[in-house]
Amino acid sequence: MLGWTCTELGARQGPGGGRGLVVRWAAPAQALRASSAGGWCQKLDSRRGGSLAPQPGRSEAAAFGMTSCGSRCLWILKMSVLLLALGTVLFMFRSIYVYTESRSDTPQLPHPALAAGMLKLPPEKRVRSLFTYDGIWLFPKNQCKCDDSELQRSYNFEDAYDPSDLPAVKMRRQAEFEHFQRREGLPRPPPVLAQPNLPFGYPVHGVEVMPLHTVPIPGLQFEGPDAPIYEVTLTASLGTLNTLADIPDSVVQGRGQKQLTISTSSQELLNFILQDVTYTSTEYQRHRVDMVTLESSSSVAKFPVIIRLPVMPKLYDPGPERKLRDMVTIATKTFLRPHKFMTMLQSIRKYYPDLTVIVADDSKKPLKINDSHVEYYTMPFGKGWFAGRNLAISQVTTKYVLWVDDDFLFNNKTKIEVLVDVLEKTELDVVGGSVLGNVFQFKLFLEHGENGDCLHRRSGSFRPLDGFPGCVVTSGVVNFFLAHTERLQSVGFDPRLQRVAHSEFFIDGLGSLLVGSCSNVIIGHQPHSPVVDPELAALEKTYNAYRTNTKAQIEFKLALHYFKNHLQCTT
Amino acid sequence: MLGWTCTELGARQGPGGGRGLVVRWAAPAQALRASSAGGWCQKLDSRRGGSLAPQPGRSEAAAFGMTSCGSRCLWILKMSVLLLALGTVLFMFRSIYVYTESRSDTPQLPHPALAAGMLKLPPEKRVRSLFTYDGIWLFPKNQCKCDDSELQRSYNFEDAYDPSDLPAVKMRRQAEFEHFQRREGLPRPPPVLAQPNLPFGYPVHGVEVMPLHTVPIPGLQFEGPDAPIYEVTLTASLGTLNTLADIPDSVVQGRGQKQLTISTSSQELLNFILQDVTYTSTEYQRHRVDMVTLESSSSVAKFPVIIRLPVMPKLYDPGPERKLRDMVTIATKTFLRPHKFMTMLQSIRKYYPDLTVIVADDSKKPLKINDSHVEYYTMPFGKGWFAGRNLAISQVTTKYVLWVDDDFLFNNKTKIEVLVDVLEKTELDVVGGSVLGNVFQFKLFLEHGENGDCLHRRSGSFRPLDGFPGCVVTSGVVNFFLAHTERLQSVGFDPRLQRVAHSEFFIDGLGSLLVGSCSNVIIGHQPHSPVVDPELAALEKTYNAYRTNTKAQIEFKLALHYFKNHLQCTT
Repeated sequence: MLGWTCTELGARQGPGGGRGLVVRWAAPAQALRASSAGGWCQKLDSRRGGSLAPQPGRSEAAAFGMTSCGSRCLWILKMSVLLLALGTVLFMFRSIYVYTESRSDTPQLPHPALAAGMLKLPPEKRVRSLFTYDGIWLFPKNQCKCDDSELQRSYNFEDAYDPSDLPAVKMRRQAEFEHFQRREGLPRPPPVLAQPNLPFGYPVHGVEVMPLHTVPIPGLQFEGPDAPIYEVTLTASLGTLNTLADIPDSVVQGRGQKQLTISTSSQELLNFILQDVTYTSTEYQRHRVDMVTLESSSSVAKFPVIIRLPVMPKLYDPGPERKLRDMVTIATKTFLRPHKFMTMLQSIRKYYPDLTVIVADDSKKPLKINDSHVEYYTMPFGKGWFAGRNLAISQVTTKYVLWVDDDFLFNNKTKIEVLVDVLEKTELDVVGGSVLGNVFQFKLFLEHGENGDCLHRRSGSFRPLDGFPGCVVTSGVVNFFLAHTERLQSVGFDPRLQRVAHSEFFIDGLGSLLVGSCSNVIIGHQPHSPVVDPELAALEKTYNAYRTNTKAQIEFKLALHYFKNHLQCTT
Repeated sequence: MLGWTCTELGARQGPGGGRGLVVRWAAPAQALRASSAGGWCQKLDSRRGGSLAPQPGRSEAAAFGMTSCGSRCLWILKMSVLLLALGTVLFMFRSIYVYTESRSDTPQLPHPALAAGMLKLPPEKRVRSLFTYDGIWLFPKNQCKCDDSELQRSYNFEDAYDPSDLPAVKMRRQAEFEHFQRREGLPRPPPVLAQPNLPFGYPVHGVEVMPLHTVPIPGLQFEGPDAPIYEVTLTASLGTLNTLADIPDSVVQGRGQKQLTISTSSQELLNFILQDVTYTSTEYQRHRVDMVTLESSSSVAKFPVIIRLPVMPKLYDPGPERKLRDMVTIATKTFLRPHKFMTMLQSIRKYYPDLTVIVADDSKKPLKINDSHVEYYTMPFGKGWFAGRNLAISQVTTKYVLWVDDDFLFNNKTKIEVLVDVLEKTELDVVGGSVLGNVFQFKLFLEHGENGDCLHRRSGSFRPLDGFPGCVVTSGVVNFFLAHTERLQSVGFDPRLQRVAHSEFFIDGLGSLLVGSCSNVIIGHQPHSPVVDPELAALEKTYNAYRTNTKAQIEFKLALHYFKNHLQCTT
């Protein structure tokens, strides 16, 4: 039967974060086409299946085309009357279907004649197919999820906790998350929408001011209809307003206050004053956005003033000769494998006799290293893998740091200069190489969700790196990489990760690090063959015990992802 | 003599960063008032002095008021004729004074009658007085400077270099600075200005999308004059556009492309389509802003889409009982003063028996510390003060870290819990206490300049801290403070600073750290009395030698500010 059709997009998240069920309706006049193949409308109970074959709908009148003839005319006449009657009846039922959505504007219900132009949203399945990357639906949603598939296993991080502990853990995580958000100024307020036909010119985006500083506001103007008096009011909340124009108080009121009002009979004078409006930040804060309003009669424009101090540069002088020694430090950590570390050190010295090597050691016995360019640090026994990594990088005084594991082997393909060139010429923060042909590139995708985010990991890269064939952009690489010291230090290696860990660093760096990978810079790896020396063999046995991922350790890492990174699950 | 007047604001930096000499001109009709006391105009050669006493100027006609009478009338008539003639002559000279400024709109020269309303900018001196804080002019300028005054000494950081080295150093610094800017997406593009009366609704600020993700663009609408056909084009550059509305290709073209065009005869249909426009980021990048344009006939609106990944949270679980031991770690560094460190450790244990104490030691001989809650780290001899600080904080696994110097003394006023409470309840990143009554609070102000920034330091605080009487907000504090570990680690202590250093940490943290200070949490300080024990006395003597700021060290620190922080000078 002909009837109303509706397509449901599902619980789509509105810009303000509110949930909205988007329902579109179609007027009955379209029902006429329902029966024709590939018609616009879908029956209500078949809304989730099938696809719509769009049809042109501009000449609505054509649908009701009339031709001259005998019985056919009569039939057409009868149909028209029937449709008209039906249309009238159904029109009265129109109000039953509510168009509810959490938007700031309630759009007008389209005119039935117009609706024949077909105003429907495609089913969720089709929207998913439009915005999927590497099989992940990268579109806003309330709830994200991690599904097992043949290619990926999924982990729910909650599983790492004892079910009896979980409610308390959830509460603590929520409290910590809210504290973090408060300090970061999150969640961001919903986007500010400008109405059409505002008689104002104003800056849409990009005015920044340092706390307690003043900036001129560019682009303010008024071009409204002629009036005997023009009155325009500017209002700020985290700062005060003024104008550089030297104007009497009868024209400009509130100079140096949070509200500035200009009243004049001359639109030109008004605009002269507006051109020199200044904003003064009055509160010392770390990062705030002040929405300044600009009003006249019933028109209101809003624009943001971003109050923040710039990032303080931390530059490194490469020196007049740009010696590699002044630009790169090698960093590593060792534990119960002194022979391997010494072998690696020897291999470094074959190619780079004077590069500083920083080594963090949490073994039982300290090493004696006879090398004037080695900086040796001892730690409490077994303090841990990432603690040691964090220690080593904390001591670097050059622009770049090259991370190597203590069992690597430098060879003639291990060209640090190539990696330096990549970082010098691109915007990458980290560039990985290849360990005996293994680049271990992986991409990370994040989906937001109410119970924590969903993190997806896929091997491979996003795109090639411009200007460097053989290099790509990705999210994570192998443990042989050159990095900007300052950025590496700002992300850091979490000392809570004591045993086996790798991708955690890149996950912590998501959003902070731009990571690349070049397969043409290769380092070797010492073989895993057992040692002969009994003392070293004993050490290695202990080492291997520490290196195994026990169940407790795996659960610890999953729980860490749950709490620390506010994640829900991963695939 | 009556003549043109102009006020020069100086080399004011326009929003796009361009320099502009702002010159305002005043029509000669104003000259009439020049002679009256406190008149609007200023003679050209006295433009930098004096102040303007604004006078109401709306009823321009009043200036030319006529009254009926005999000889007076004649005088008035003569003056009027003279003025008219003068006005005509000077009007022709109007074009000589050019209104040049790097703005996107060239404002119209006001009508002479209007100009009597006095459109002048105050002299620089007055602008300075408007926007000065603590004696520093916090307003955009091309060149900042540091002047000696009775209260402040100034340092030019270039003086730290050999004049013969300086040109090469400048070039290297500029190269490093440009690399840094490229990676940070600086300088920011000039503010985007919206023209008045655009027939569009659109988001002004706040649409964010993660790289490779899709977001719906809220608030798009068109409300223009009626037309037979409406054609609206959206153009992006770092992503593609689409619409969720199921519409045929004859109406919407370019779906999934960088340019989306909607052509329809129905404004309602147009708006339905616009309501569901989506933006898909197509490039994997760290932080970009895509200016999307929205055009129809001759109207163009632009709005920003910010492409970035969110900051990955790094939360710490306080545990079900919120034990202080699970929330706070004490960190310190020691060098050639083992007795002082041990004394301090004993004083800690009197009040906090189980808090973890992390100590970095770059002395010659390692200590033996019999305390199961002390983590002891050794470093290369004399590696340095800030290197040791960076090492110690790199090992912290709790939410907060309390920094103490190795010669402090805990007492019953040293209430760590109070500092924890301050950080838990506010947005501060760091809160300092008092060392025997000394809070050492100082504020930092930054002015941008072409040859590097000017940094100003003033003692005291910005404002009280809401909710905590006895606490204030400032930029720097004494070396007794509690900090958010994650944020402290992200700023870090620069290991290049080997000897005496303090404020460098807070300077590096400018913009990243919100710092507070509470005078009611007090720690003691061990007296400077010399030790009896000869071995310790020898150590102390060596220590004092390292502790002195040699000329070379002072120059090193000034040079570091010059290069690393891109500063020009300081007061």
